[in-house]
Amino acid sequence: MIDVGFLNYLEDKLVKVDQKMVSYSSGYHPDLMAALDHLMVAGGKRIRPIVTLLMGIMLGAEEDKLISLGASIELLHTATLVHDDLIDGALLRRGNPTLNSHWTPAATVLTGDYIFAQAARLAAEIGSTEAMSLFAETLSIIVNGELSQLFGKSQVPTREDYYYRIYEKTGSLFALSARAAAMISPADRKYVEPAEIYGKELGKAFQIVDDVLDFTGNQERVGKPIGSDLRQGIPTLPAIYYGEQHPDDQVLLACLDGTATQEEADGLIKRINESGVIDQALAEASLCVENAIQNLEGFPEGREKDALSELGPFLLNRDL
Amino acid sequence: MIDVGFLNYLEDKLVKVDQKMVSYSSGYHPDLMAALDHLMVAGGKRIRPIVTLLMGIMLGAEEDKLISLGASIELLHTATLVHDDLIDGALLRRGNPTLNSHWTPAATVLTGDYIFAQAARLAAEIGSTEAMSLFAETLSIIVNGELSQLFGKSQVPTREDYYYRIYEKTGSLFALSARAAAMISPADRKYVEPAEIYGKELGKAFQIVDDVLDFTGNQERVGKPIGSDLRQGIPTLPAIYYGEQHPDDQVLLACLDGTATQEEADGLIKRINESGVIDQALAEASLCVENAIQNLEGFPEGREKDALSELGPFLLNRDL
Repeated sequence: MIDVGFLNYLEDKLVKVDQKMVSYSSGYHPDLMAALDHLMVAGGKRIRPIVTLLMGIMLGAEEDKLISLGASIELLHTATLVHDDLIDGALLRRGNPTLNSHWTPAATVLTGDYIFAQAARLAAEIGSTEAMSLFAETLSIIVNGELSQLFGKSQVPTREDYYYRIYEKTGSLFALSARAAAMISPADRKYVEPAEIYGKELGKAFQIVDDVLDFTGNQERVGKPIGSDLRQGIPTLPAIYYGEQHPDDQVLLACLDGTATQEEADGLIKRINESGVIDQALAEASLCVENAIQNLEGFPEGREKDALSELGPFLLNRDL
Repeated sequence: MIDVGFLNYLEDKLVKVDQKMVSYSSGYHPDLMAALDHLMVAGGKRIRPIVTLLMGIMLGAEEDKLISLGASIELLHTATLVHDDLIDGALLRRGNPTLNSHWTPAATVLTGDYIFAQAARLAAEIGSTEAMSLFAETLSIIVNGELSQLFGKSQVPTREDYYYRIYEKTGSLFALSARAAAMISPADRKYVEPAEIYGKELGKAFQIVDDVLDFTGNQERVGKPIGSDLRQGIPTLPAIYYGEQHPDDQVLLACLDGTATQEEADGLIKRINESGVIDQALAEASLCVENAIQNLEGFPEGREKDALSELGPFLLNRDL
């Protein structure tokens, strides 16, 4: 969980989200239980449930429903990560060994499926078929994004391609976190669209910063080598800006089609870090955060609105 | 689809189920579309949607909802098969090449996930959170069953173990097909439980016959070698009966822990076929069908009830 002053008052609710996430797990296979415990301990910062809780409380939604919704969204996120790690062959996630590194692929596929099922059970608990539809649609968008990336061509994408890809990967689930919370609240429907845009823009900023940290981050704390996306042939915003400014750098294309040597990749990553594109990418993320905050205009005043406004700048300045 | 007189009048509705199954697919990645088409063409006999349609029509449910429910259940089934084939490393399913045989594991995992998402979207369309919960719970049961099988020990299970395993694998989804149809109908709630038992018993009979056909079936039409379950270390009802009657046959244990030679397995499968346990297993399947039919007592008379009664004996006598 995020340990930061303006969110501390949510702690008891976030503990309930965590408890809800494993509420259907008892009675199942012991190896599966162990795997789920492992995933929970290695768990993320619960940013998506934080968005759900803040948006929902601000608009007067029932706490029980928000807890189920937050837990459901975090489980959906966890399930996609489990399958994603299998697909990437990743051995570390958030600096912890992934399930994939010590389980068979079969067990990993099934554990992801099991977590999907739990996510769907919690989503159904909320009692809103509208939220349920949105939940299922979001899963489609995420998976379609992963498939597109898998089948993608080894060329430098446009910024538009990149923005759509990070919407599929990250923005869509942030958008769900905020939109579904507004949907299940008794507040006016006029809040649903701006809530969604808030989530979408916040998710976009979050992913851009994530992609920047891949170039600049502390290798040990991130748990993977600097520039690992590019080394795997995945171009992110800094590389795209760099490609626009240096269309003749052949190493960039070589990285994307997997023919670059490690030394060439090291050199390119150094050039990218020194070229000013990192600041350019962070400026873009700042614009997204501003846009997110603008969409909160007209929402009920109070500490939830304040916290949603502070969340963006906080995510921009995180160093992991 | 099943081509049999007493079900022909459902044909136009089953065509709608098939159309519904791909209704969310347009606009997605072309390779994914091709894979989905492949799966639909290789598709099964739509027995689960047939159960849903018959039960729902009999109890007065809306056709649109039944179509969505039937399509959703068939997609859930398809998604589990896609992941299952990946886990088994199976190259043929229903005599057709599986997705796994010409796709990468990554694409297969994601295609399964995508089909789960479509199934959930259709289930949400029905507008019943009760049905949605049941849907998610059924997915949990199926996946937990697969995990248990994966982690299972190489010993001869009891009949009870086997019956629970085939409930997880097959009975639970047949039970959902019938129970959810009753749930979304305007008929009295008294029908919900017997509808579920009907589905559960029919599914049990279906799976026992499937397991018998693995020993007796036409190799070319089934698309896999005779006794393939046992060769993979999976004991089914004929092998369990045989083990009860021949506790000293060491080859059975060797098959289950993967140490039997092909010649030893061939010999064991021949002994099982000649030992009378096949008829014993079929008699058990007949009992399940009788039990299923008994649970229809008190349901509204008409051609749907007649067809549900005929479905069991039909499934018992199928040769593929």
